[in-house]
Amino acid sequence: MAGSTYGRLFTITTWGESHGKGIGVVIDGCPAGLPLNEEDIQSYLDRRKPGQSRFTTQRNEADAVQILSGVFEGKTTGTPISLVVFNTDQRSRDYGDIATYYRPGHADYTFDEKYGFRDYRGGGRSSGRETIGRVAAGAIAAKLLKELGIDVHAYATAIGPVQIDRSAFNLEQSLSNPVGMPDAAAAEAAQAYLNECMKNQDSCGGVIECRITGMPAGIGDPVFEKLDANLAKAMLSIGSIKGFEIGDGFAAASSNGSTNNDAFTMTDGEVTKATNHAGGTLGGISDGSPVIFRVAVKPTPSISQTQHTVNQSGEEIDISIKGRHDPIIVPRAIVVVEAMAALTVLDLLLTNMSAKVENIKKIYPEK
Amino acid sequence: MAGSTYGRLFTITTWGESHGKGIGVVIDGCPAGLPLNEEDIQSYLDRRKPGQSRFTTQRNEADAVQILSGVFEGKTTGTPISLVVFNTDQRSRDYGDIATYYRPGHADYTFDEKYGFRDYRGGGRSSGRETIGRVAAGAIAAKLLKELGIDVHAYATAIGPVQIDRSAFNLEQSLSNPVGMPDAAAAEAAQAYLNECMKNQDSCGGVIECRITGMPAGIGDPVFEKLDANLAKAMLSIGSIKGFEIGDGFAAASSNGSTNNDAFTMTDGEVTKATNHAGGTLGGISDGSPVIFRVAVKPTPSISQTQHTVNQSGEEIDISIKGRHDPIIVPRAIVVVEAMAALTVLDLLLTNMSAKVENIKKIYPEK
Amino acid sequence: MAGSTYGRLFTITTWGESHGKGIGVVIDGCPAGLPLNEEDIQSYLDRRKPGQSRFTTQRNEADAVQILSGVFEGKTTGTPISLVVFNTDQRSRDYGDIATYYRPGHADYTFDEKYGFRDYRGGGRSSGRETIGRVAAGAIAAKLLKELGIDVHAYATAIGPVQIDRSAFNLEQSLSNPVGMPDAAAAEAAQAYLNECMKNQDSCGGVIECRITGMPAGIGDPVFEKLDANLAKAMLSIGSIKGFEIGDGFAAASSNGSTNNDAFTMTDGEVTKATNHAGGTLGGISDGSPVIFRVAVKPTPSISQTQHTVNQSGEEIDISIKGRHDPIIVPRAIVVVEAMAALTVLDLLLTNMSAKVENIKKIYPEK
Amino acid sequence: MAGSTYGRLFTITTWGESHGKGIGVVIDGCPAGLPLNEEDIQSYLDRRKPGQSRFTTQRNEADAVQILSGVFEGKTTGTPISLVVFNTDQRSRDYGDIATYYRPGHADYTFDEKYGFRDYRGGGRSSGRETIGRVAAGAIAAKLLKELGIDVHAYATAIGPVQIDRSAFNLEQSLSNPVGMPDAAAAEAAQAYLNECMKNQDSCGGVIECRITGMPAGIGDPVFEKLDANLAKAMLSIGSIKGFEIGDGFAAASSNGSTNNDAFTMTDGEVTKATNHAGGTLGGISDGSPVIFRVAVKPTPSISQTQHTVNQSGEEIDISIKGRHDPIIVPRAIVVVEAMAALTVLDLLLTNMSAKVENIKKIYPEK
Repeated sequence: MAGSTYGRLFTITTWGESHGKGIGVVIDGCPAGLPLNEEDIQSYLDRRKPGQSRFTTQRNEADAVQILSGVFEGKTTGTPISLVVFNTDQRSRDYGDIATYYRPGHADYTFDEKYGFRDYRGGGRSSGRETIGRVAAGAIAAKLLKELGIDVHAYATAIGPVQIDRSAFNLEQSLSNPVGMPDAAAAEAAQAYLNECMKNQDSCGGVIECRITGMPAGIGDPVFEKLDANLAKAMLSIGSIKGFEIGDGFAAASSNGSTNNDAFTMTDGEVTKATNHAGGTLGGISDGSPVIFRVAVKPTPSISQTQHTVNQSGEEIDISIKGRHDPIIVPRAIVVVEAMAALTVLDLLLTNMSAKVENIKKIYPEK
Repeated sequence: MAGSTYGRLFTITTWGESHGKGIGVVIDGCPAGLPLNEEDIQSYLDRRKPGQSRFTTQRNEADAVQILSGVFEGKTTGTPISLVVFNTDQRSRDYGDIATYYRPGHADYTFDEKYGFRDYRGGGRSSGRETIGRVAAGAIAAKLLKELGIDVHAYATAIGPVQIDRSAFNLEQSLSNPVGMPDAAAAEAAQAYLNECMKNQDSCGGVIECRITGMPAGIGDPVFEKLDANLAKAMLSIGSIKGFEIGDGFAAASSNGSTNNDAFTMTDGEVTKATNHAGGTLGGISDGSPVIFRVAVKPTPSISQTQHTVNQSGEEIDISIKGRHDPIIVPRAIVVVEAMAALTVLDLLLTNMSAKVENIKKIYPEK
Repeated sequence: MAGSTYGRLFTITTWGESHGKGIGVVIDGCPAGLPLNEEDIQSYLDRRKPGQSRFTTQRNEADAVQILSGVFEGKTTGTPISLVVFNTDQRSRDYGDIATYYRPGHADYTFDEKYGFRDYRGGGRSSGRETIGRVAAGAIAAKLLKELGIDVHAYATAIGPVQIDRSAFNLEQSLSNPVGMPDAAAAEAAQAYLNECMKNQDSCGGVIECRITGMPAGIGDPVFEKLDANLAKAMLSIGSIKGFEIGDGFAAASSNGSTNNDAFTMTDGEVTKATNHAGGTLGGISDGSPVIFRVAVKPTPSISQTQHTVNQSGEEIDISIKGRHDPIIVPRAIVVVEAMAALTVLDLLLTNMSAKVENIKKIYPEK
Repeated sequence: MAGSTYGRLFTITTWGESHGKGIGVVIDGCPAGLPLNEEDIQSYLDRRKPGQSRFTTQRNEADAVQILSGVFEGKTTGTPISLVVFNTDQRSRDYGDIATYYRPGHADYTFDEKYGFRDYRGGGRSSGRETIGRVAAGAIAAKLLKELGIDVHAYATAIGPVQIDRSAFNLEQSLSNPVGMPDAAAAEAAQAYLNECMKNQDSCGGVIECRITGMPAGIGDPVFEKLDANLAKAMLSIGSIKGFEIGDGFAAASSNGSTNNDAFTMTDGEVTKATNHAGGTLGGISDGSPVIFRVAVKPTPSISQTQHTVNQSGEEIDISIKGRHDPIIVPRAIVVVEAMAALTVLDLLLTNMSAKVENIKKIYPEK
C-alpha cells in the first residue's frame, strides 16, 4: 500500500488534488444489499463544504458527489463503489511564487524532499480537499453502522482557549452553531475569539471529541490491531491533527489505579461499568460502554501575517499568504473525524466476524 | 491480518501468553547483511525484564532470548528471524477465582465477549509479557536504524503528578535512575511518590516522551500512512497507553498559527526549522527535525485495594488482587515505546525507497 | 482487501461495471517522476478495445481514457493516479430475461449466491470490460519497466487446435494479424478455424504465451511471494483463464531431472544458463533468463447455440444468447496478460529494493 | 509482507531453515473454540516426513510438532498459535564445496543474487523442509473445514510418463501405495519406473490432483481475489511446482464453448451443474460443484549424475551431488498441496462472511 488506502475488509482508496480535475474514492468490500443513494453521501459532504459561515473559506464549490459504480437499483452490489466530486472552481489563476517557496506549517518542503517536486496548486494532494474522499466513504460506513444500531457523533470541546462547560452539554446544540460546540454559551465565546483572531490576521486550534454509542462488546483485536490503536491512526492520518486520547487520556497519566479503574456492575442483567475512565475499551477491545476519544487540532497554518521562510534556491525570505483561509480547521474537521471513526469501527466489526467458530457456523450452517 | 502482525515490509508477528510455554516473534523482511547476535537483542530485553527495582514485579524470569532462524555466520540472511523466550517461571500455581471474575481495568471481560472464553493464567495474551516480542524485534530495527545514523530514545517526563524540569534535562540521567527520568531531582520525587502509592496499595500512571534523531526528511506517506499516524497506532497498540501527541500536541489546540508555525531557515546550506512545534513532521512526512512525541500511560490496574466487580455468573462481588504487581508501568514501558518507534520508522524508510523513479534506478541501474 | 486491489507497493484498485457509468482504476504507489500522458495509456487500451476485427464484438466504444489525478506537468507526482473510461454505449436497452436465468459458463449464478443479487446488465462487474482498469494501469507499469530495460510481450501460441510452429516464430508478426500469432501461416489457419466456429454458432479457446526480457536476477521472494506464484495468481485472476505454466510447465512433470535441470555456464563474464526449462525462475526468484509462461484461455461462454440452464425460480429452461459476441477471447486478452505481468513484475522489483542492507544505504547514505 | 506470510484473515507466517535450529509457523486469526491437540497436526506432518518408503530420503527426522501458544484447555483461543518442529538431525557435517557453487535447478544462485549470500546448509530456507510450517498450519485449517463439511483430498495422477486410468479411480487406494496414486495398477507401474530412474541416477516429475468437496457456492471474490487465482498462487508458491490448471485447464484451450460450458440443472431442488468442466468456479467464485485442480511437479533437481555448472568465482565446473535424495517429489508433496488448498479455501470462507449485509446482521443482531 502506498498510503491512500485504508481498511482491511471495508477498504477505501482516495485520490485527487486540490486543483486537479476532481477528488474521489473507491470503496471496496462494502457488503451487498445496503440501500444507498447520492443524497446519503451528499448530506455528509455538505457538512464539510466551504462557505458555510464566516469562519470557513469562501471557495465556491458545490462539491456534488456522483456514484459511478457499485450501486444497482438503489442497493450496494458488493463490488467497488466509485465516488467522484469534480472540481468546478478550477479557474486558471496566478499562483505567484507559491511554487518556489516553502510555507511554514504546510507540507511543501516535505513533499519536495520525498518526491523531488510537487503539485503546488492549492496544496495539491496535501490540501484539506483530500478529506472529501474520506467523508464520502465515511457516510456509507456510518449508514451501515446505523443499521446495526451504532451511532458516531463528533463535536468541538475547545476552540483556542474556550472550552465547553460539561454541565451544559447538549449534543443537538453542536449542530446549530457554526463552531460545532455542544454548549451555546461556549459557542458564543468561541466566535468572539475567532473574530479576534481574524482581526489579528491569525488562526487558532481546538479540540474535537467523538462518541460512539451502541457498540457491541468484543470489537477490536488484541496486540497491534486494537480498537484504540486503529482510531489513533485514523485520527492522526487527518491533516492538522496533533494528538489523540481515549477516555481520560493524558489525565489518566496523573491518576491512580484506584480512581482510574472502572468497576464492573450488573444493570438489567447485563455486565456494565460504573464509570468510563477507559473510554470504552479494555485491552484494545470494546467493552460495551460508549467509545469516547478526543483529538487536538492545530491552528490553520495559512495566515496573512508576515512569516519567515526559505525558497527552493535556499534564500531566506518573508512571505504573506494571500487569499481567504479558514481561521480555524475545527468546524469542518468534525465530520471528517466522524467519517474516519465510522470507517475504523465498521472495518473492525467485519474482521471480528470470524473471531469464533460459532460465528462461522452461523454463516455456513452444516447441511 | 488478525492482529498480531505489524509492519508492511519489515513485518513482525508476535505470539505467546503470559503463562504458556514461551513468548516469541517472527521478523520477516529484515534486510540481509545486518550483523546480529543474541546479545544485541538481550540488551533490549533486559531493560524490560522484571525485578530490576522495587518498583517492578519480582517474577523471576531471566527472559533469555534464542535466535532460531534467519541468521547465518553472524549476519541476517533476509529470511524470517524467529526469536523465542521460553517461560521458566511456569510453576503450577493456584489461580484461585481469577478465572471466574472480571478484573477492573483488565481485558478479562472483553476477551470473554470476543472469543467466548479466555486463557486466564496471568492475563494470557493481554499480559504485559506480550511486549517481549515487540522489544526483541525492535532491538533489530534499532540496530539497523543506527547503521543509518538514526537514534531512538525514550524516557519518562511525568510519574503521577511529578514532572521533569525541562531546564534540567539530561538524557544520560534517564538511564541511571529506576524511573527513567532525565532529571535527577524529579526522579527522586517520583520515587517518593511511588513509595506513597505502594503504602496505599495503589498505583499511578505517567508520561513517556520519545525522540528520534537523525531522521532524513521525506519519510512517511501522505494521507493514511502518515509518519505520525503510524506512530500513534504503534503507541496505542501498547497495553495501558491512553494518549499520543506529537510536537506540541494538545497544547497546539489552544495556540495560534503565528506561534505554532515553525519558520524555515537555512543552516549550513541546509533547510532547517527555527522551532519544532510540529515535532518533526509536516503533512505526515518527516521534515528533518527530531521527531518528538509523548504517550500517556495509565496506572497499573492490578492493585491490592478492595475493588468491586462482577463474575461470570453475573454476581456482584468484591475482590482484592493478590501478589506483587508493579505500582507503575512506565519504567518498563520505556523500551517498549522505543521498540515500537524503531519498528515504525524503519518500515516507513523501507516503503519510501520506491517513492522516486531516480531511487529505483539507483538499485537497478541500466546495463 | 475485498478483491479489487492488486499489488503491495505499486497497488491498483479497479472499479466499474459493463453497463454502469464507467470503468476506472486508481494506481497508488507509482513512483514520482515518470513522464506520463494519456496517449501512453490509450495505446494499450486500443489493443483490447472492441471492433478491431471480425473476431471481436462490434460494441461501439471509443474507450477513451482520462487522467484525473496524480500527474502534474507531464510527470507522475507519487500520489494516486486516477484513470477513467466513461461508458458511451449505454443506450437504454431491453435486457429481456437475462436477469432471471443463469448463463452457462458465466458468473451469474455465483454472484447471486455470494451477494444475494447482481447487476445483470452485460455481466456487470464480471464482464470483460473490467479489464480496462488492469490494462490502463499495466500501461504505466510497462512504461516504468521499459525505463529499467525490461520488456513484456505476449502473443497467442494456440487458437483452438491450431498451434504455432516454433521454428517460424516471429514476434513482429504477432502484432500484424488479428489473432496475435507470431507465425503467419498459423494465423491464417486460426482464422479459417474461427470462421468455422462462427458458422457453427460456437466459440473456441486458445493459449497465450508471455515473455519478459531484461529481468535482473534476484527478483521475487522465497516461500509465498515467489515470482511465479504471483504471476500465476495474476493470470488466473483474469476472467476465462483456466491454467498457468512456467517454463516447461506440465511437460516438466513427465521429464527427468537430467534433462529438466538447466546447466549454469559463463557468458561474457556473467552467470547464464545453457537452457531455460525453468522459465526464468529458481526457487521463485528470477535467474536472469527470460521469464516465459503460458496461460490457457477457455472458449467464450456466450454462444448463440441453444443451451440448457435454470432460472431463478428453479425452472429448467433452454436459452439462446443473442447479440454479437467474440468467438474467441484470446486476441483481446493478450494485452491483459501483458498488463498483469507488468504489474506483477514491477511490484516485486519495488519490494525487492530493501532485500539487502547495502541497497538501503544507497538510498539513505550516511551524512 | 516479505514473503513468508500467507492469508488475509487466517494468516500463517513460516520460518526456519533446513539445517537451522528448527522450523515453525505462527497462525494468526484462527477462530476461537476449535478443539486442537498436537496429534491433529502430527498426523499431517507424518504424511510428509522422510523415510517412509524407498522413494523418500532416509534423513532421520521425527519431525515432532510442539504447540507453544494459542491453545488452552484443548481449544484454540483466537490468539496466535505458534508451532515448532526442532531439527534433530543437525549433526555437524562436511558441506564440502556446496557453499561455493550453484546447483542446477536449485535456488543457490538466485539467493546469492537477491541477498548477497546464503545459508547453504541443506538448501537453507529454500529446502523442502520449509513446507513443514505449511503442513502444520494446513492441518488446522483442514480440521476447521471438516467441521463445516468441507474435505480436501490430493493424490498423484501421473508419475513421469505413468498416468492413472480414470476408470479405475479409487481414492482410498491413493493412501495405501507409496506413490499416492488412486489406481493400484498405475502405482505398480510408477514404482517400476522410479526404480529405473534411481538406477540411472536420475529423477522424475509428476502431476498431483486435488479435489475439494462440500464447498458452499459463493466463495471467492471477483477480480483479483478469485478462488482459482488464490489456489494458483498457493500452488506455485510450493517449491518445484511449475504449472496449475483448474477443471479442464489447458484442455479447455482447444475445446469449444458448446462442449466446455456446463449446463445448469436442478437436483433435489438445488441448482447444480450437469458437468464440471469449470472445476467448481465461475467468475472466480465457487459454484457448489467440487473444486478440482492439478499441478505439475518438476523432477527432483538433486541427482547424482555428473552435471555442469559454475562456481562463485565464475569458473565452469562439473559436479555430482552426493547423498540420498528423493527420486521424485510428488509423494511427499501431496499433503503440502492439501495443506495449501485448505488454507486458501478457509481464508476465502472467512473473508466472504461480510459479503452481504444480511450476514452481518446474523452476527450482530439488533438489540
